[in-house]
Amino acid sequence: MNKTINTVAITGGTHGNELTGVYLIKHWQSQPQEVARSSFTPELHIANPAATQEVRRYVDQDLNRQFNIADLADPQLAGCEQQRAKALNTLLGPKEGPRVDFVIDMHTTTANMGMSLVFNSNHPLVIGMAFYIKQKMPNANLFYSPTDRLEDNFLRSMGRFGGLVIEVGPISQGLLNYQVYADTRTAVMHALDYLELYNVEAPPEVPKAMTGYRFIEKIPFPTNDQGEITGMIHPVLQGQDYQPIDPGDPLFITLTGETIVYQGVDTVYGAFINEAAYYDRNIGLSLMEKVDISYPTDSLDSTS
Amino acid sequence: MNKTINTVAITGGTHGNELTGVYLIKHWQSQPQEVARSSFTPELHIANPAATQEVRRYVDQDLNRQFNIADLADPQLAGCEQQRAKALNTLLGPKEGPRVDFVIDMHTTTANMGMSLVFNSNHPLVIGMAFYIKQKMPNANLFYSPTDRLEDNFLRSMGRFGGLVIEVGPISQGLLNYQVYADTRTAVMHALDYLELYNVEAPPEVPKAMTGYRFIEKIPFPTNDQGEITGMIHPVLQGQDYQPIDPGDPLFITLTGETIVYQGVDTVYGAFINEAAYYDRNIGLSLMEKVDISYPTDSLDSTS
Repeated sequence: MNKTINTVAITGGTHGNELTGVYLIKHWQSQPQEVARSSFTPELHIANPAATQEVRRYVDQDLNRQFNIADLADPQLAGCEQQRAKALNTLLGPKEGPRVDFVIDMHTTTANMGMSLVFNSNHPLVIGMAFYIKQKMPNANLFYSPTDRLEDNFLRSMGRFGGLVIEVGPISQGLLNYQVYADTRTAVMHALDYLELYNVEAPPEVPKAMTGYRFIEKIPFPTNDQGEITGMIHPVLQGQDYQPIDPGDPLFITLTGETIVYQGVDTVYGAFINEAAYYDRNIGLSLMEKVDISYPTDSLDSTS
Repeated sequence: MNKTINTVAITGGTHGNELTGVYLIKHWQSQPQEVARSSFTPELHIANPAATQEVRRYVDQDLNRQFNIADLADPQLAGCEQQRAKALNTLLGPKEGPRVDFVIDMHTTTANMGMSLVFNSNHPLVIGMAFYIKQKMPNANLFYSPTDRLEDNFLRSMGRFGGLVIEVGPISQGLLNYQVYADTRTAVMHALDYLELYNVEAPPEVPKAMTGYRFIEKIPFPTNDQGEITGMIHPVLQGQDYQPIDPGDPLFITLTGETIVYQGVDTVYGAFINEAAYYDRNIGLSLMEKVDISYPTDSLDSTS
């Protein structure tokens, strides 16, 4: 046995109104054998119990933006989620050299993003896991935004080798949908199988490269002088996540019926189109570029 | 001119996370000519500004359950929405003999209920309006739950002749969708046209009867001893609002994969299937019966 992964955390309820992860954690707490593997038994955590209790995304601030190494060390950041991030840093970390080897964090979105695997690390374990899941679930989308692990402010960055966000939609906030629940469970099963194979055999064979999407920028809704939203996602764009957006294609329609088009010069791809959680910052969608993601040849010794 | 309707209130944001009505009210505040008719100009109200500000359904309790005549008179009921209901009773009422003749209240649902016209009055103005809209929008569903106007705890009951709830879905809480916005606007336009025709010509011709759905009962999710939800809407039922449910048809699937079927003896119809707002009371769906709704022959003098 080539045991590399000793400690795996599966987290749900990082956003308290994304019930799928919350109910999967509860399910596995009563059926731990479903997530146990011969070489490890995952820890199960409700990441944000206070927000989960209130069925809100967050109480004071988005927990999934609080794990930057500098913020974790800043005692001035004392809001509900800022304190919870520090508690999770103690529970799973410390971030500089975490106790936990890998974090699998379950999320949902109101956007039509299907099964999206969101990761930022070029570590072979992270990319290998994403590729492995996409081999098993070919409709999965690889959403890759390279970031340094210590700088990354997502909960997934609390794993020694990093982590993976499993993001499934479309689903409303505050409810369960069987298909979303079942797909999320299946993806987590594959993720655990990947780590098990890694430990007891060898890194599973994955393609040398797969096609994915890399974040470019967020596009705000049209707003008025008071900062109020004055337009919606255009009906031809609604639900078209990961589809091409060409120059001149409609992005928004205003409340009075005018169309606003994409002014860029390159073909891009939409993601998080009409995500309810981003209305508080007036964000309408993310633009992505299609990229080939390579399976890295780095040694496993690289931990950030 | 046979002017009957002098004062019409259009309301949105009765639930603060149902943005469609909120943004239509804002739109019409800047474009009042769109809702003006020759015989009346509607009042435009954000019904629950505090909850709208927080993008939550409610702050303390559901505003749309606070308009029962006894509750409006009870000074012990002093929560945020209980006080707001009393303020609206002053603004629109008093309920015993309201200043406002008709209330059009805009809502959305996470259930796949399409365009639903929800009303409880057998007043010819209310039923006539619902029939008129369904003539113009044939896919509209008539959702009829007879209640006495003074007992009715919905905001719509603050109209002298009653009112109509325009309920559109599926849409997540906390976001806008162009099609839902446009359909809601269209239904309100037809509602106003109906009142205008009533005032300046004669009650528009509508069928003597139309098919609709009458509420029977709410069906709870399966729960455990701690009152926690242990099942979801079954995937074959998800999205099937207003479709028949026969004895033995699946209703729920538990977190562990067991199917729970409908145990009744009659064919019924589902509505509000998987409405996020009802999770706080563990309600999975409503059962409805299909009914013929008659256009009443009562005189208009009957006001409650």
